[in-house]
Amino acid sequence: MFALILAGGAGTRLWPRSRAALPKQLLALTGGDTMMQATVKRVLPIVPLEHIFIATNREYAPLIRAQIPGIPAENIVEEPSGKNTAPCIGLAAARMRQLDPNAVMASLHADHFIADEEGFRQALLAAAEVAQEGYLVTLGITPDKPETGYGYIKRGAELGDYNRHTVYEVSQFLEKPDLATAERFVASGEYYWNSGIFIWQLSTLLDCFRQYMPEFYEQLGQMEQAMAAGQAIDAIWQQIQGESIDVGVMEKAAKVAVAPVNIGWNDVGSWAAIHEINQKDENGNVALEAEHLAIGTTGTLVQGNGRLIATIGLEDVVIVDSGDALLVCARDKVQDIKKVVEWLKAQGRNELL
Amino acid sequence: MFALILAGGAGTRLWPRSRAALPKQLLALTGGDTMMQATVKRVLPIVPLEHIFIATNREYAPLIRAQIPGIPAENIVEEPSGKNTAPCIGLAAARMRQLDPNAVMASLHADHFIADEEGFRQALLAAAEVAQEGYLVTLGITPDKPETGYGYIKRGAELGDYNRHTVYEVSQFLEKPDLATAERFVASGEYYWNSGIFIWQLSTLLDCFRQYMPEFYEQLGQMEQAMAAGQAIDAIWQQIQGESIDVGVMEKAAKVAVAPVNIGWNDVGSWAAIHEINQKDENGNVALEAEHLAIGTTGTLVQGNGRLIATIGLEDVVIVDSGDALLVCARDKVQDIKKVVEWLKAQGRNELL
Repeated sequence: MFALILAGGAGTRLWPRSRAALPKQLLALTGGDTMMQATVKRVLPIVPLEHIFIATNREYAPLIRAQIPGIPAENIVEEPSGKNTAPCIGLAAARMRQLDPNAVMASLHADHFIADEEGFRQALLAAAEVAQEGYLVTLGITPDKPETGYGYIKRGAELGDYNRHTVYEVSQFLEKPDLATAERFVASGEYYWNSGIFIWQLSTLLDCFRQYMPEFYEQLGQMEQAMAAGQAIDAIWQQIQGESIDVGVMEKAAKVAVAPVNIGWNDVGSWAAIHEINQKDENGNVALEAEHLAIGTTGTLVQGNGRLIATIGLEDVVIVDSGDALLVCARDKVQDIKKVVEWLKAQGRNELL
Repeated sequence: MFALILAGGAGTRLWPRSRAALPKQLLALTGGDTMMQATVKRVLPIVPLEHIFIATNREYAPLIRAQIPGIPAENIVEEPSGKNTAPCIGLAAARMRQLDPNAVMASLHADHFIADEEGFRQALLAAAEVAQEGYLVTLGITPDKPETGYGYIKRGAELGDYNRHTVYEVSQFLEKPDLATAERFVASGEYYWNSGIFIWQLSTLLDCFRQYMPEFYEQLGQMEQAMAAGQAIDAIWQQIQGESIDVGVMEKAAKVAVAPVNIGWNDVGSWAAIHEINQKDENGNVALEAEHLAIGTTGTLVQGNGRLIATIGLEDVVIVDSGDALLVCARDKVQDIKKVVEWLKAQGRNELL
């Protein structure tokens, strides 16, 4: 098995910690390892380091090399510019094919948290068995609440049991629902969150590119030729139309399967998520990189910068101290952090982005 | 008129800004000037700088000299150790008597805020007229709410009009009341907050020391002799029993008067008070020394340290960023800041005190 880790994003939802120059996947927000390092370690028992590829933009490549010592230099797939997920997955698949055209590939994200790591690996192995039958396989997260921030997958007919996982055909991919719809999805038991974790044979995936994204497939061939000749791919890359793998391939393909999992998955999409996945004290408080003196404070996350943070009489607050900026935010208002980032952009305050 | 400014306290209620090494009276919490500087400027139109004395502990004396350039060196009354207010008032009065035995002295605090400065000066001039008649005079603050944190003064018979102020004899000094009592005080119209601002003739005050604090009066004479001989007063000072001027003199004296004033007085005893006395934006927020980006935030005080502070969805919170420590506190829980300070003391964390 090969693994591709997508590590290109510059998330703003974890401002002021996550920055353009140091995004969340390169930070240690869920333990001693950075999320990038944790993602690599999570698959190492079933994917050797030389089969792990990391797709990222050029700016982050040096940081990733430093965080993942021993990874082969050619396994870092540097995107000349952001083109969404399909092009970089295609480029990585083309490189993997040169090493082993019959391999199965797992496409992962560098900024996901997974509590049950062994369960995750067993699910990948199950999905790999399904992929051998020519399916594009996605891990579907069993929802535990009517989350409106994720896309959903409706399952179809049962395909069978693979490595003790019941796997289904995908009936439909659904956009982020409203709350009533999400509640109906969760109640029915037939819907899963779309984790964005995919498993496929290289040959299946590349066939899909040829069939559903023919222009990109041709550009991919041109890039392979350029790389074989030791030339830069930038000029070809600039011509590529950005597209997500979901829209470009998954929603169009005929043989798509979902392997439902219950592995403590979290996409760490907000400070509220960071609070959720970390160990809490008896008052529901979480302190990261801070000495937190909490008086009459409950449900509060403190992401510090080494110094003492005293809180008094707070309920469900997020405090993020990044050295050059301080955020204090009601925990149920973390979605408005994007307004701060928009304001900084509008003001040209690039040093704080 | 002479003025004595009491500047010895090391308040902890404004932690983490107010520190043992730099207490609130030496900070600029209410404008461009430090509270010490503002206190001096407030009386300068009616008291020349050479008649202004400042009583403080030795640690703060160099900082005060730096903040009040031009003040005669001998006008800084250094207390060898804290003995409450009566001894340092007595020591200052003894020094003033050498300059002018017939003078009137106003005893002020370095950490009070007064919005109506001209009204304050006119009240001092009125009180000085009453003091000429042998009264110990106190400014009584007309209460605008049933505050339980202050002592109260009950007025007695009207003494007359002085400089367009109606002045009364004091009927009684009362300790901090409970809420029901405070409400009754405010409703009656006959009670005032005890501001701790006193005006008296030097001769009247020193007579009172002789009558009501005879042991201290004798020690005061010994200190005067020591100073005249160029000797240190420390050995005598250590023998003095600490006492407040309120208990030692005001509550015992026969001729005590109160001049009611309505001058926007605030003793700046908490971060809530800092919020109260500063100009607020349309959402009731106050930002001091900070760039405050407020999103959905109301009634919040941000005391910064130069960097950006973004707040989202907060209501009535106090944020104080002091560089080495951060406080985030519900505005109605600022009285619990003393618990933080107690914890720091118990932990021996003197660098944060």
